[in-house]
Amino acid sequence: MEYIYEKQKELIILERIDSLLTWDKHTTMPKNGFRTRSEAESLIETISHKLLVSNGLYDSVRRLRKANLSKEEKAMVDKLYRRILKSRKLPEEFVGKMSKETSLAYGAWVEARKKSDFEIFKPHLERIVKLKIKEASYIGIKGHPYNSLLDHFEEGMTVERLIPVFAKLKVDLLDLSAKVESSEVYKNKKIRYIKLNFDRDKQMKVCRDVSRRIGIDEDFSRIGVSEHPFTAKMGIDDVRFTINFHDNVMHAFSSTIHEVGHTLYDLNTPKNYTVLSDAPSFGIHESQSRFWENMIGKSRSFWKYYLKKFRKEFRINPKLDEFLIEVNDVHNGLIRIESDELYYCLHIILRFEIELGLIDGKIKVKDLPKIWNEKMREITGKYPKNNAEGVLQDVHWSSGYFGYFPTYAIGTIYAAQIFNSLKKKYPDIEDDITAGDYTKIREWLIKNIHSKGSLYLAEEIIRQCCGEGLNPEAYIEYLTTKYREIYKF
Amino acid sequence: MEYIYEKQKELIILERIDSLLTWDKHTTMPKNGFRTRSEAESLIETISHKLLVSNGLYDSVRRLRKANLSKEEKAMVDKLYRRILKSRKLPEEFVGKMSKETSLAYGAWVEARKKSDFEIFKPHLERIVKLKIKEASYIGIKGHPYNSLLDHFEEGMTVERLIPVFAKLKVDLLDLSAKVESSEVYKNKKIRYIKLNFDRDKQMKVCRDVSRRIGIDEDFSRIGVSEHPFTAKMGIDDVRFTINFHDNVMHAFSSTIHEVGHTLYDLNTPKNYTVLSDAPSFGIHESQSRFWENMIGKSRSFWKYYLKKFRKEFRINPKLDEFLIEVNDVHNGLIRIESDELYYCLHIILRFEIELGLIDGKIKVKDLPKIWNEKMREITGKYPKNNAEGVLQDVHWSSGYFGYFPTYAIGTIYAAQIFNSLKKKYPDIEDDITAGDYTKIREWLIKNIHSKGSLYLAEEIIRQCCGEGLNPEAYIEYLTTKYREIYKF
Repeated sequence: MEYIYEKQKELIILERIDSLLTWDKHTTMPKNGFRTRSEAESLIETISHKLLVSNGLYDSVRRLRKANLSKEEKAMVDKLYRRILKSRKLPEEFVGKMSKETSLAYGAWVEARKKSDFEIFKPHLERIVKLKIKEASYIGIKGHPYNSLLDHFEEGMTVERLIPVFAKLKVDLLDLSAKVESSEVYKNKKIRYIKLNFDRDKQMKVCRDVSRRIGIDEDFSRIGVSEHPFTAKMGIDDVRFTINFHDNVMHAFSSTIHEVGHTLYDLNTPKNYTVLSDAPSFGIHESQSRFWENMIGKSRSFWKYYLKKFRKEFRINPKLDEFLIEVNDVHNGLIRIESDELYYCLHIILRFEIELGLIDGKIKVKDLPKIWNEKMREITGKYPKNNAEGVLQDVHWSSGYFGYFPTYAIGTIYAAQIFNSLKKKYPDIEDDITAGDYTKIREWLIKNIHSKGSLYLAEEIIRQCCGEGLNPEAYIEYLTTKYREIYKF
Repeated sequence: MEYIYEKQKELIILERIDSLLTWDKHTTMPKNGFRTRSEAESLIETISHKLLVSNGLYDSVRRLRKANLSKEEKAMVDKLYRRILKSRKLPEEFVGKMSKETSLAYGAWVEARKKSDFEIFKPHLERIVKLKIKEASYIGIKGHPYNSLLDHFEEGMTVERLIPVFAKLKVDLLDLSAKVESSEVYKNKKIRYIKLNFDRDKQMKVCRDVSRRIGIDEDFSRIGVSEHPFTAKMGIDDVRFTINFHDNVMHAFSSTIHEVGHTLYDLNTPKNYTVLSDAPSFGIHESQSRFWENMIGKSRSFWKYYLKKFRKEFRINPKLDEFLIEVNDVHNGLIRIESDELYYCLHIILRFEIELGLIDGKIKVKDLPKIWNEKMREITGKYPKNNAEGVLQDVHWSSGYFGYFPTYAIGTIYAAQIFNSLKKKYPDIEDDITAGDYTKIREWLIKNIHSKGSLYLAEEIIRQCCGEGLNPEAYIEYLTTKYREIYKF
């Protein structure tokens, strides 16, 4: 037993080191640091991989699976066993090939997007899709071949479970967005405040303030600045996030609240070095960022309190009702990362449908731009003007991340279920939010989600605290109530 | 051959990762990051050590030593062999013990210095000295047992070589300081400008400026802020340094120039991943920082150009002559890191004498405070008021760094020899410095020192570009000329 604790610790510490390499790369590293940095990243990955697939570890885990263990130990040994098995299924040569292909594809994608030329990216994506199909067959989870890829990001979740959930979500979201867009409030809306730009030091001051209020202590965290916001866990008591300043004040503010959700989670998982000490899936992690960003950070109660800070710091003076319309602006845009609570999941479902087709062979890479644009018209009523704002907008496929996108929608759904459950436990919670006091919320999340680590699969954790597994109803209900109030339809 | 290139690359990349762990720890890491950070540092160290002492690497290096190799390859294989042999001589248990002792000793030293209570540190230092004596016997370099410790920092250098060099240096420095201190200029000196404190952003602006002028490109470097300034090499094209802002403007400025010297060196060593791709010793590395900090950064020619920047940025208006006296202020202080070009090496020689005695058994740890204070009086004419400003002032011994101090003096001596040699090659170099143009100097250093990596031992590199090995005469001559001009004795 001691041996597998020691080896797990090594694996986790290597992950933390890798997080530091990433954090530094995006926040501090000088431009020319990339040469050694990519060597360093690949060395840490190789060392981890060798450790994970080593016969020594495999044998002792297999022995332990037959031993008499406590519930926690059993969960740990089982999770470790699943991780090892998965890694051992992928031949070393295959892993090397994938890593080489994706590193080449990234450069090609950057160029293709810049020139809005899909042809540059096409051969790379074709090779990656071929490799992902192969990967799925190596992993071999039953059902749709995509399950084997999805499982990497959302262990236990399947295509068969997701299809009806996403189908219902799509219908309801399209219906709701039509209602919003035909409302008088929508037609007369004006965006006057949230797109204003302010001094960065002032923006940072407000971001720090909201981060501290939600519960991030500076002795345990840092805020960095990078091209794209992210959260990275460098240690048991060291979780940091980044933001960026675009030309509108809500960008940095919203991403702060989003990343604070991730950071709070990672700071409150069990303080040890085992495979159970992190979140069990990307989806449940995203539920925390979405919960704080949307359910809290875009609510009337939140802005009842926080708008005075904005008024004071940025010397603007919007009315609460006006400001809420702006914060909850709905717009049928073509770009996922700029979209709102109504459209976001529709963008995800589009990608999910395409990924399924690519992996089961029903969609060919060469047809992607056309298929993308048609699906986009179905959602937004508009065709992208070019591939840069169409099929080339996301980096994920160039990195081989097939199965990642659904976790964004899963997280969003979980967030609404969590909010529901929280409101049942604390019917007056809106009063706390209006008073700028998030203590009860934070403690509920820590107790019911963060502190579980990955003792259970994500959906089981949700089931325990929300009474049921993945179900989009709470999300639709939440959106309907909120948007009906704001847009008065 | 390919195998040992690959393994060297792994070793070097691990060193670079370790540098990042250190850089981040001192510049960015939140307070509570230390828990995982020390685990990460120790894991990287363990992985490196295992790799270095592995039988596979040992056997292939031994085979290669008998092969027909180019001069460079032979130097590389020999250096790698020496490193491996040294590491294999230290039993794993011993290495673990040392690491544990020093990590405990550091905390004890911090507390002891804070309370100015040597008794707190004494038992730790006694254990460390005992271990260092043991280490010296494991390594077993001939001559004085201290040679085995010195060799770690200054390969090839010996106590037997250093004793006469330091003896001459001590006599000459004491003589020179007496002359300075009895001069009329010294007696009437006023410190009015260099201790002024200015806005940190302005100080940083000037530090960035001088760094860029000397030749550090921002695409290859970063300036961080940490408690103690240092330089860290994170990659072939990524070398960074830190500074700190004390309550006087010259602190950040001088340490910038010092660290720029280190940074320039590390950015211009051979761009590969072999044991020859770094500097051959701490002393020659320090020669670069001292050269820029003192020979250039405290010279009349430098300030002829740079004083106008100070005047403009900080809105002060000293005369050049006044300012030069301040920059080259001599003071018989008790603290090494606050001392000047005259006293610095005397502080080092004091520590060298004590280290020799501790390692050959002639000095007992319990007698250290008394011995320290007497030696200090011999140099400065003053007794320390307490052990915090006496024997407890340096962190080095708590880390087990015996043999490190001499490299500061060796570097200072080399710096003067280099300056001499440079002036012979470019008799009009002062004109360039006065014009703020360091191109020739930088290129000379790159060609004659940086680009050699550790193809030769440090002293051999100095011999090749200066015509002779370690010799304090150039330093004494440099000081005499400079201080005679300033202090008019």
